[in-house]
Amino acid sequence: MRDRVLVVDDLPEPTPGAGEVLVRTLACGICGSDLHALRHADRMVDNARRTGSPFTLDLSRDVVMGHEFCAEIVDYGPDTMRGLSRGTRVCSIPFLLRGNDVHLVGYSNETPGGFAEYMRLTEALLLEVPNGLSPQHAALTEPMAVGLHAVEMARLDRNDVPLVIGCGSVGLAVIAALRLRDARPIVAADFSPRRRELAAAVGADVVVDPAERSPYESWQDVAVWQSGDAPPQLPWIPGPALRPAAVFECVGVPGIIHQIMASAPSHARIVVVGVCMESDRIEPMFGINKELNVQFVIAYTPEEFTRTLHTLAEGKIPVEPLITGHVGVDGVPKAFDDLASPERHAKILVEP
Amino acid sequence: MRDRVLVVDDLPEPTPGAGEVLVRTLACGICGSDLHALRHADRMVDNARRTGSPFTLDLSRDVVMGHEFCAEIVDYGPDTMRGLSRGTRVCSIPFLLRGNDVHLVGYSNETPGGFAEYMRLTEALLLEVPNGLSPQHAALTEPMAVGLHAVEMARLDRNDVPLVIGCGSVGLAVIAALRLRDARPIVAADFSPRRRELAAAVGADVVVDPAERSPYESWQDVAVWQSGDAPPQLPWIPGPALRPAAVFECVGVPGIIHQIMASAPSHARIVVVGVCMESDRIEPMFGINKELNVQFVIAYTPEEFTRTLHTLAEGKIPVEPLITGHVGVDGVPKAFDDLASPERHAKILVEP
Repeated sequence: MRDRVLVVDDLPEPTPGAGEVLVRTLACGICGSDLHALRHADRMVDNARRTGSPFTLDLSRDVVMGHEFCAEIVDYGPDTMRGLSRGTRVCSIPFLLRGNDVHLVGYSNETPGGFAEYMRLTEALLLEVPNGLSPQHAALTEPMAVGLHAVEMARLDRNDVPLVIGCGSVGLAVIAALRLRDARPIVAADFSPRRRELAAAVGADVVVDPAERSPYESWQDVAVWQSGDAPPQLPWIPGPALRPAAVFECVGVPGIIHQIMASAPSHARIVVVGVCMESDRIEPMFGINKELNVQFVIAYTPEEFTRTLHTLAEGKIPVEPLITGHVGVDGVPKAFDDLASPERHAKILVEP
Repeated sequence: MRDRVLVVDDLPEPTPGAGEVLVRTLACGICGSDLHALRHADRMVDNARRTGSPFTLDLSRDVVMGHEFCAEIVDYGPDTMRGLSRGTRVCSIPFLLRGNDVHLVGYSNETPGGFAEYMRLTEALLLEVPNGLSPQHAALTEPMAVGLHAVEMARLDRNDVPLVIGCGSVGLAVIAALRLRDARPIVAADFSPRRRELAAAVGADVVVDPAERSPYESWQDVAVWQSGDAPPQLPWIPGPALRPAAVFECVGVPGIIHQIMASAPSHARIVVVGVCMESDRIEPMFGINKELNVQFVIAYTPEEFTRTLHTLAEGKIPVEPLITGHVGVDGVPKAFDDLASPERHAKILVEP
């Protein structure tokens, strides 16, 4: 990204510093945040500054995006352990640690992301890709870890019935993580037929088109307690006894948190995984009357990232249907355009 | 309340129905919600309808408010067990149960609240006032139970450091409940000197005037881990290691949730106890970047109400300083005016 537009250009090969490794990108997914960063670059920078995020960009300087990558080791910088041989396939959380500074690989002026042919990574954060997992599938570690983290933060109980609102990349990762935990039945909603198809492919039990029927009604159909299983209920609570709701907000536009708060059942836990960068409006009374809980989440822990890579390597996440396109570096600008339509693509991988 | 203004008038003595008891009010507190109901009656009714609350009012008919009461049994209706003798002092959650209908005592067109000389109560919900507790202190069961419930819903861990924003009736009840649990140090903030004094009286360890210093800075001073106690922290998290924050929102005006989200430390749990009846604005990015949790709460469970009454009877809550006025029924309109200033009063009890 140069002056707020995508350009394809030759850059000098990065030099790995102390504790760093030079790697060659094998595959790197394009993330919804990348599209957002391109379209709303100024607002994103302004937001990061306003909301206390340590990651800010200087838009007058180049940024090479790409943070969902798998790469192979090319060379070692000074002060490195060199435990892995050259050519080893690796993943890493997209952080480059330099003393007390942290650079977000893919959103930095200082170091290129995975849409470049070469990157620097911090040696201590490298994870060897296990089990002969393909670079294409390994590159999905990052987006899939986002789903795992959201599900971990939901504090699920075995009686909870999840509802996933929005089946883009984030929603699909949440569905996959719910399925891995066997937190079923999983209800998922999206206006796009293609995304509903993918939701079913990664493990949703009930998929809903909100234009046809309220996702909350569909949720209620499968969430009613079987007779005899229901816990005691205060006599003045109306309606049938329902299992607890964990609602995952995976849309990330203004108004969606309000819509979920207005529609969610009493005592629902709402996990906000979507990234709404704008100011937003809510009605606290919906939260109060229903004693809702809203858990905002971001990213994942290093442990969750590692666990996701290993789960992928064990073949336990059906990611193949999610990969709907492959491009070289030259194809990145067109891929960004293509991703605007949910009917055509889920994940496009850049293979420099 | 008649046609949106307070009037003092004679009403026919209510007749207890099946399963109901006629009681005489001994003491009944004036709640912030009562002031709100009077000042914003139409908005309150509109809000209840819009946000799915089962409790709506017809403002063209009389409403006798008062839901924080202690009363004595005068007579029994049909189909009652009569386990308590006439003259017994009782409290009750402010619900009148009639078949599948629930009337909120104090916000109903069908049955009078505690600012009337006589009320109907549901026999099955009566709690005998134990231990010779005075009716004045027993009448504080309801507001104090609100604080206990908020603290229960906060899911406190023994390392948490609480911060109470707003020291009106709700904030003071939260502080008292935190102190009962020994969840210390307790930091509390209010612009009013009188309220800060009361906050200290019910158990706050640190009281802050937000006009002088940020409550979040004062919180941080006491929340830094003692060296050696701190859990491992990811190396890229800036600043000193802090104990987890539980922030109690006890103000209930538009903008306060946003302000807390913008200022709270990372991973804070925010418990919204204040009742903001208007639409409100938040910045989701503050929640996302800091992985905040927002728990909305309302009222209490019957068990929490009972527990609060018994804790009061054991003399474990220093409520005496909270009672700053006593009036008869004739004095209610003036008491409503006086309560507008936080410097003069905390709780005024009506003793009809």
